[in-house]
Amino acid sequence: MKKIPLLLMGCGGVGRQLLQHIVSCRSLHAEQGVTLRVVGVCDSKSLVAAPDVYASELDDKFLLEVCRIKSAGSSLSTLRSFGDCQVHTHSDLSERLIEIASLLSKSTGLAVVDCSASSDTIEVLTSAIDLGCCIVLANKKPLASTMEHYDKLVSQPRRIRHESTVGAGLPVIASLNRILSSGDPIRRIVGSLSGTLGYVMSELEDGKLLSEVVKAAKSLGYTEPDPRDDLSGMDVARKALILARLLGNRITMDNIKVESLYPEEMGSAVMSVDEFMSSGLSLLDKDIQEMVHKASLHGNVLRYVCVLEGSRCEVGIQELPRNSALGRLRGSDNVLEVYSRCYSQQPLVIQGAGAGNDTTAAGVLADILDVQDLFN
Amino acid sequence: MKKIPLLLMGCGGVGRQLLQHIVSCRSLHAEQGVTLRVVGVCDSKSLVAAPDVYASELDDKFLLEVCRIKSAGSSLSTLRSFGDCQVHTHSDLSERLIEIASLLSKSTGLAVVDCSASSDTIEVLTSAIDLGCCIVLANKKPLASTMEHYDKLVSQPRRIRHESTVGAGLPVIASLNRILSSGDPIRRIVGSLSGTLGYVMSELEDGKLLSEVVKAAKSLGYTEPDPRDDLSGMDVARKALILARLLGNRITMDNIKVESLYPEEMGSAVMSVDEFMSSGLSLLDKDIQEMVHKASLHGNVLRYVCVLEGSRCEVGIQELPRNSALGRLRGSDNVLEVYSRCYSQQPLVIQGAGAGNDTTAAGVLADILDVQDLFN
Repeated sequence: MKKIPLLLMGCGGVGRQLLQHIVSCRSLHAEQGVTLRVVGVCDSKSLVAAPDVYASELDDKFLLEVCRIKSAGSSLSTLRSFGDCQVHTHSDLSERLIEIASLLSKSTGLAVVDCSASSDTIEVLTSAIDLGCCIVLANKKPLASTMEHYDKLVSQPRRIRHESTVGAGLPVIASLNRILSSGDPIRRIVGSLSGTLGYVMSELEDGKLLSEVVKAAKSLGYTEPDPRDDLSGMDVARKALILARLLGNRITMDNIKVESLYPEEMGSAVMSVDEFMSSGLSLLDKDIQEMVHKASLHGNVLRYVCVLEGSRCEVGIQELPRNSALGRLRGSDNVLEVYSRCYSQQPLVIQGAGAGNDTTAAGVLADILDVQDLFN
Repeated sequence: MKKIPLLLMGCGGVGRQLLQHIVSCRSLHAEQGVTLRVVGVCDSKSLVAAPDVYASELDDKFLLEVCRIKSAGSSLSTLRSFGDCQVHTHSDLSERLIEIASLLSKSTGLAVVDCSASSDTIEVLTSAIDLGCCIVLANKKPLASTMEHYDKLVSQPRRIRHESTVGAGLPVIASLNRILSSGDPIRRIVGSLSGTLGYVMSELEDGKLLSEVVKAAKSLGYTEPDPRDDLSGMDVARKALILARLLGNRITMDNIKVESLYPEEMGSAVMSVDEFMSSGLSLLDKDIQEMVHKASLHGNVLRYVCVLEGSRCEVGIQELPRNSALGRLRGSDNVLEVYSRCYSQQPLVIQGAGAGNDTTAAGVLADILDVQDLFN
């Protein structure tokens, strides 16, 4: 039985779903000859680890209790009384994580899994790579950081997996890596990579007002608490940056042209969320309605997409043929169109749910199973 | 530098394209820290191998000469005079291939690559697996053979890759394996997996006659020399069987309901290709035209698909909503729709060119790079 020890950073929706998937897949993975040993779990404040990370792990009852108490809003430190574990709540969490990575890297190997949404994990991740560990990321920020951080993180290309940074569990990164390693040069990528903006754009097409659609999306829980976090396009830009770098473009966020759906004077530094929702948003209706109308006169629709072509990387609204994979998109699915030598006339299209904790965690779990050949 | 020794079976369109890709990707793969060492190439009659498979390989000049002479219809044995190689033309080719596999398996490892279209490779492939080699298949027949052969071939699941057996280079198998290893149960797969039949069905939709469309497709080189090889549905059935087995269904070809587009009395045992094209085919026009018409009255279109659901596996014509990924399909692209827990309302869709030597060979090459962690 191949054993993969795991250290999980991040206990939000995705991290908890991952722990639940790990527990529920025990027998499936045993059939495949693999056991996942979770040796530690941390959030931004605390770390709970097995008493002896070599020989023991956090058991399934413990992992489910982690999920329960984090869902209830409690601190990981309350687990001290629950079972056999070490609890660390110092300010030097990173040091302790690196210590575990260092202990396990040479003996059993270790997969360090980042399901947080923070830049604070970069230090641990880069150290883990230096130590010869594998890293698996759902967190976009480390790969959208400086070029120096990026280079370090991908310096051992077989030791990093990050499917869930773009399109949740959709097989986007895995497929692009296959195309690249087969020497098929990727010429162009166009993608709708925000479920929220995908939903907004397809509703606009039906003649609804932007303000209506965003309000409805917010009340349905489709948007971030501050919908401007979606409407700014920054989340899409991070995904675009990760794709651009995967294609070999040595660029940073500053090199990406990002179109925001609201002007600077409606930013969070100027307006509260409530103000934006009640008065700001409706001021944007007319302009975008005209854009939708103009596009439809050309037989086109508007989509909020990323476009990568050569060294160009742009994120914003584009008029696209109603009859393309992107033009036909409805609701919150993500779509990626890839043009290469092998996919020259018609693109390779990958489409499906590109958000959700279950799907994102499934992508992380598939990544973990995918590095198994590096473990004994 | 990681070295992957390769033994290639099959020098047809796909095998030759693979050799060309290997040669043209030398610097790309070197950047990734990988070298592919082709130690032997064979067709059904001859094997050319490096004089010392441990220490030497067939060089790029030699590999390109293999491509040249096979394209010209010559025998591999003519390479005897070309360069430093061993040539075997005995009847015991399999034995010699197994000998090479046995020599390399323990020392350097070996990837045995099957780009043939024959069942004769099964003995070598199963022996290679027993010896601890990796196997990479574009050839569907071994995986569509008996359950006993299948079980043996996949007995070391990490040592087999066969992306190009379904949908050429489309990331179908890789994506399904990811979904399966993440514990996301696949409920249903519907796929249009024949470029030829995809083209035929979308032309019929435009009101053309089956006989016209098949004649045009044959003259464009879209069909097999005998178009009945496409119209029988057997090629799709083999792909469906491979997918069904991947999902864990222990079935054989006999368990698949396969709808042929022509009746038995027009089979190759009864009619020549010419007879079929000139007189048989047009007898089929009326019935299928009526089916197309009936489907369109329901707002549907006809597609020749495989459907996998639970233990059910069927291959044939289905009425599908005009507005689904499959219904919108035009031309010769392949499409796969996958429904699972994560993709429940809207399927995961993978679409793109599903045929062609270039694309198929690219899929094989990506598979070879994907097993690299099993080599030193």
